[in-house]
Amino acid sequence: MEISELGEFGLIKRLTENLKPQNKSTLKGVGDDCAVLDYGGTNRILVTTDMLMEGVHFDLQYVPLRHLGWKSVIVNLSDIYAMNGTPRQVTVSLALSKRFSVEDIEELYDGMRLACEAHHVDLVGGDTTSSLTGLAISITAIGEAPAEDVVLRSGAQPNDLVCVSGNLGAAYMGLQLLEREKAVYLQQVREAGDRRDEVMFQPEFSGREYLLERQLRPEARGDIIARLREAGIHPTSMMDISDGLSSELMHICTQSHTGCRIYEERIPLDYQTAVMAEELNMNVTTCAMNGGEDYELLFTVPLTLNDQVSQLQDVRVIGYITKPELGCALITRDGQEFPLKAQGWNPLKS
Amino acid sequence: MEISELGEFGLIKRLTENLKPQNKSTLKGVGDDCAVLDYGGTNRILVTTDMLMEGVHFDLQYVPLRHLGWKSVIVNLSDIYAMNGTPRQVTVSLALSKRFSVEDIEELYDGMRLACEAHHVDLVGGDTTSSLTGLAISITAIGEAPAEDVVLRSGAQPNDLVCVSGNLGAAYMGLQLLEREKAVYLQQVREAGDRRDEVMFQPEFSGREYLLERQLRPEARGDIIARLREAGIHPTSMMDISDGLSSELMHICTQSHTGCRIYEERIPLDYQTAVMAEELNMNVTTCAMNGGEDYELLFTVPLTLNDQVSQLQDVRVIGYITKPELGCALITRDGQEFPLKAQGWNPLKS
Repeated sequence: MEISELGEFGLIKRLTENLKPQNKSTLKGVGDDCAVLDYGGTNRILVTTDMLMEGVHFDLQYVPLRHLGWKSVIVNLSDIYAMNGTPRQVTVSLALSKRFSVEDIEELYDGMRLACEAHHVDLVGGDTTSSLTGLAISITAIGEAPAEDVVLRSGAQPNDLVCVSGNLGAAYMGLQLLEREKAVYLQQVREAGDRRDEVMFQPEFSGREYLLERQLRPEARGDIIARLREAGIHPTSMMDISDGLSSELMHICTQSHTGCRIYEERIPLDYQTAVMAEELNMNVTTCAMNGGEDYELLFTVPLTLNDQVSQLQDVRVIGYITKPELGCALITRDGQEFPLKAQGWNPLKS
Repeated sequence: MEISELGEFGLIKRLTENLKPQNKSTLKGVGDDCAVLDYGGTNRILVTTDMLMEGVHFDLQYVPLRHLGWKSVIVNLSDIYAMNGTPRQVTVSLALSKRFSVEDIEELYDGMRLACEAHHVDLVGGDTTSSLTGLAISITAIGEAPAEDVVLRSGAQPNDLVCVSGNLGAAYMGLQLLEREKAVYLQQVREAGDRRDEVMFQPEFSGREYLLERQLRPEARGDIIARLREAGIHPTSMMDISDGLSSELMHICTQSHTGCRIYEERIPLDYQTAVMAEELNMNVTTCAMNGGEDYELLFTVPLTLNDQVSQLQDVRVIGYITKPELGCALITRDGQEFPLKAQGWNPLKS
């Protein structure tokens, strides 16, 4: 059977459905943003890992190594925050091909170090080896949270409010912009008879800096976690939006055995995202629902916390949780209901 | 600067020398088999990670996926044992190219699951993604040890005895054997005009099964850790032998600020290793000192424990620790001293 028939989620499900934790220190294994471990302290230990492959997750033709280093750490810290935890350590494994110089790797590491410093995280180990082909980066993040604070994907209840931080779709628009300018550049190179030296190319990014920043230099929303804590709000479920809002909503609803209703008019968008979508003749709601790489937080809170959550800076209530039989749906501006699809960002599917 | 000028250890040193842990939960970062963390329980938490790249660490022409899965977990568990700890969890990240089927990945996972079961370890998470080229495997292992039990590389003292478990060089000889048979096969394929179907090739492995097993299905020596514990022996320093005895001895001596004397005649060898080295016209001591992938334990104990350690099954005293000014040396059968070289197994150097 080809892997593409199952896709990433199908493959993971098939590989992991028979895993039964044997150790009492394993509280939660596969299936959430982090594994949850209990090593006897007052706090739970959270562990998450992500692998980034050149050509699949990043294109070094337009991603500076320093930004790549930053992002590769941030996406892991985002998973710790998504459990309502505090990240403390990362390990970094790199596989490098010969075309990288020591200075290149120092750039990459500088970006990683900046991300660690920004989030008060220690780089405590790793592995550095060679690759016959592209660059591979594997990072594991470790964090902690008081036992009663840990938030899983599975705790949403009917009538809970669905909330997101920040705005959505901007990172995806940034990627489209970078891809478009790369295509223009390659076209100019072809026209110059493949003589790259003779092409004086200036990409047109002016006025779109925010989209580039969201794609190249995403943030992990530790600030939102801190605000929730200050406001005394304990989400009933939470995850980070890495594969697109639609896909993540379906994870929460599947694991919580619920449905949901999301209002298109409530989905937070940045002005630049909307302009860029218009320019590319794309539906901005589709981009926000399925774009991915937002690294914003998606969470649910009890309806009784409506006032408190509505006052939180940079948090928007976008809908509510329903009974499971109602399914997951988007309600458009003109009042139509469309079932959500877990299109997500699935490199194994195409 | 090219990475090959620095090599793996030089590059890691350069990238990590300015890292200063900020979190009180980080007791030890980069520089040992594992990071050591303190999350407030009675036990320390140990974390290690390893990355295996196709074409660099394994050749799928002769490594069955099930064995690869086994080995990729075992090499990480070995690092936990090398801290005198007990492994509890692993996370597994895979990057797959399209040529793998679902059944292939199930084979790989089966091997991982077998290794986890054999060592009572839970697979608690990971990442599964695609690769444009070969297979990449990144595993992180987490374990624990009572604070007073953790053994670092840096605790060896002059006059301590140097001990190793099992025997050395067999995995390296297994690799030579596999490479030789692969070369014979490829020669036959060439002679058949590249028609692989027409080649009826049977590799000659008979009588060499032990070498193959050491290469393809290594063990992590949790049994030795258990025996040391039963005997009440607390090593002063320890690490696992993944890059070759010579290289690892130099790590221990550098980090402990000592020298050492190792006796060639004391180095444990299997009969098949010696026969194979003879057949390939290689010096068996060189193979044992520099071969790598043994995943045996190298440790030091106070001289006063000579009787106890000598009675341990499958453990051999091979030399002793000296003051640093004496350097690290091998004493040959005819009494000559040769300084050790950290040749090791360094894919970034060649």
